[in-house]
Amino acid sequence: MLPPGLRRAIELFSRLPGVGDKTAARFVMHLLSGDRALAGALAEALRELDTSIVPCPRCASFADAADGLCLICADTRRDPRVLCVVARVQDLLGFERSGAMRGQYFVLHKLLSPLDGVSPQDLPVSRLLARVADGVEEVILATPPTVDGEATALFLARELRPSGARVTRLASGVPHGGDLEFADQITLGRALEGRKAIE
Amino acid sequence: MLPPGLRRAIELFSRLPGVGDKTAARFVMHLLSGDRALAGALAEALRELDTSIVPCPRCASFADAADGLCLICADTRRDPRVLCVVARVQDLLGFERSGAMRGQYFVLHKLLSPLDGVSPQDLPVSRLLARVADGVEEVILATPPTVDGEATALFLARELRPSGARVTRLASGVPHGGDLEFADQITLGRALEGRKAIE
Repeated sequence: MLPPGLRRAIELFSRLPGVGDKTAARFVMHLLSGDRALAGALAEALRELDTSIVPCPRCASFADAADGLCLICADTRRDPRVLCVVARVQDLLGFERSGAMRGQYFVLHKLLSPLDGVSPQDLPVSRLLARVADGVEEVILATPPTVDGEATALFLARELRPSGARVTRLASGVPHGGDLEFADQITLGRALEGRKAIE
Repeated sequence: MLPPGLRRAIELFSRLPGVGDKTAARFVMHLLSGDRALAGALAEALRELDTSIVPCPRCASFADAADGLCLICADTRRDPRVLCVVARVQDLLGFERSGAMRGQYFVLHKLLSPLDGVSPQDLPVSRLLARVADGVEEVILATPPTVDGEATALFLARELRPSGARVTRLASGVPHGGDLEFADQITLGRALEGRKAIE
């Protein structure tokens, strides 16, 4: 019912995470009826993504091919002695939004996952050890509080022990603004374990 | 924290309907980590959208610039005597999915809306009348059952009276699988009004 070019655009949009056929169609209709300039600009930006964005050789986050290092690894005001190990670049962005992280990052891009066939040798362990050997004093294992995330953190903690760096894990507990009534038992258990004295 | 090219892609994606910064970032991360080929293909498809897709001169849906008429207006198996007037191309796609519409369509691309400053002269009335004059026997006003949709239907019904074509409106009532307990009073009222005898 639609021109092939349009159906193709919908099909491609529907391959984005969390986007179904109807949402993809909504995107394409918006590009055609609402904001036609956006289609051209987006095409341009995507072509640039495809060519100019490379993994940062130091942290594996994304860097501009022209720069080499990513903006965080290149930023001399960041403390290179504190290394926050995250699973995904999105997690890195979350920490940056929080403004609580003064150190630098290391992006794994995967977590141990028997189901997805990700085993220890698939993790960038040697690159992580090399980075830690470069003056890192604390490694914060900020993998998600999931089964895969915990397994990955435990594995990396063991691998990092010889490095002599202090290895820490994110605190786990009830989220800010969370409702205790609806917190699951594991979260509540960890919140109790990790309880702190009020000064 | 991200290369400018990447931030730009996120900013552009976040201009799509219903897409916030985080979803846009998720899309871009997927294009960079998951499916790199998709970025290039999407860029290509968007460039094509921008150039090759034009409004169908007959129904204002989308057509391939090469073809002229859209696939439905060009389809001789469709009944040109029944014209379904919809607000958006998405609505047309909905009817096509239902398979219940054998006729052709006319896309308004807008509804009367005092708030958005859409007044009667902004509607393609003369183009609609010209299309109806071209052998249409029934005009189904399939604008949405909203205030703007109803107002537009009433206005178009009055404009169409001289044409002599039969003008109908979609049935309004409780949706299939809908729960009466949660149906709003207007929907229930219309469902009662429109009640049918069981043969």
